[in-house]
Amino acid sequence: MEHFSEFPLSDAFHFIEPGPAILLVTSQDGKPNVMTLSWSVLIDFDPIIGCVLSPGDFSYETLKKTKECVIAVPCVDLLEKTVQIGNCSGAAIDKFAAFDLTALTAEVVKPPLMKEALANIECVVIDASLANKYGLFVMRGVKAWFDRKKTDKRTFHAVGDGTFIVDGETINLKRLMTKWEQFI
Amino acid sequence: MEHFSEFPLSDAFHFIEPGPAILLVTSQDGKPNVMTLSWSVLIDFDPIIGCVLSPGDFSYETLKKTKECVIAVPCVDLLEKTVQIGNCSGAAIDKFAAFDLTALTAEVVKPPLMKEALANIECVVIDASLANKYGLFVMRGVKAWFDRKKTDKRTFHAVGDGTFIVDGETINLKRLMTKWEQFI
Repeated sequence: MEHFSEFPLSDAFHFIEPGPAILLVTSQDGKPNVMTLSWSVLIDFDPIIGCVLSPGDFSYETLKKTKECVIAVPCVDLLEKTVQIGNCSGAAIDKFAAFDLTALTAEVVKPPLMKEALANIECVVIDASLANKYGLFVMRGVKAWFDRKKTDKRTFHAVGDGTFIVDGETINLKRLMTKWEQFI
Repeated sequence: MEHFSEFPLSDAFHFIEPGPAILLVTSQDGKPNVMTLSWSVLIDFDPIIGCVLSPGDFSYETLKKTKECVIAVPCVDLLEKTVQIGNCSGAAIDKFAAFDLTALTAEVVKPPLMKEALANIECVVIDASLANKYGLFVMRGVKAWFDRKKTDKRTFHAVGDGTFIVDGETINLKRLMTKWEQFI
């Protein structure tokens, strides 16, 4: 792919574990949509990722039906757009057009990658049985893409009150990771 | 409580939503234990919180059996200890003693609060049926405590490779939260 470099799926969890706000891209009948989501969790390193949606989200039914999505990880350059994306509905507008976002064809799934994101993880829903009870969709990452040219790689974290915490200093404590040596 | 101030349960999700590394305090037969965990997720605002543990974690069986824990949210002053706590097992050592941590009696649950943390959320496991399949424990926060005297409130986020991202700048975008006005 011209814009993104593929990277190993086994490294994709590093984009989810820190808990950044993410963008969930879905597609139905050829029309892409995107929602902002900060209720996500790692379930396994493969990666298996859990995303909690509300039945009120327009993407909820799409995800239940199509069982595919792309998790796009935005950097701070997309902060305002990410908040705006989370405050309108794909039922009413074409968000890719409204927010001047670029859809790039993914390799495995129908929903597109988002060109403006730092990383894109193509995902397949492997268990939607917990959607009714908890809004939880369990998905497996099947292909991962990374924008090596992006210089400011700081992501951001939703507090849930309209404030957002941007990544600060990264501290290396690999010397203390005696139990998890295979990951460092 | 002398050290901590209680705060509304409806605000407790603000400590989980940003995705910081957390400390999960359990207790069995009167002995407290603590593990480091970064695979957590909000499931509802009440708060309902999902925590993913591995059967290999010493806390896993304790949590399954006792169905109670305290989620302690550490700040950057506890970063090194948090990593060390995540690299040893409560099966082998008394972590509260080994890391010079102070257990304070909680109000609702048996596991103690951690005095050194910024916030403590007392939790009751309401659904352990997904522990076998996904390691997922669904819990409800039942009491929340906050250390108002802590000056440096920066939390940190595990990347999963032995590096940790400390909270940087907080950006206020409440003006864009047109859909979620009740939370701002």
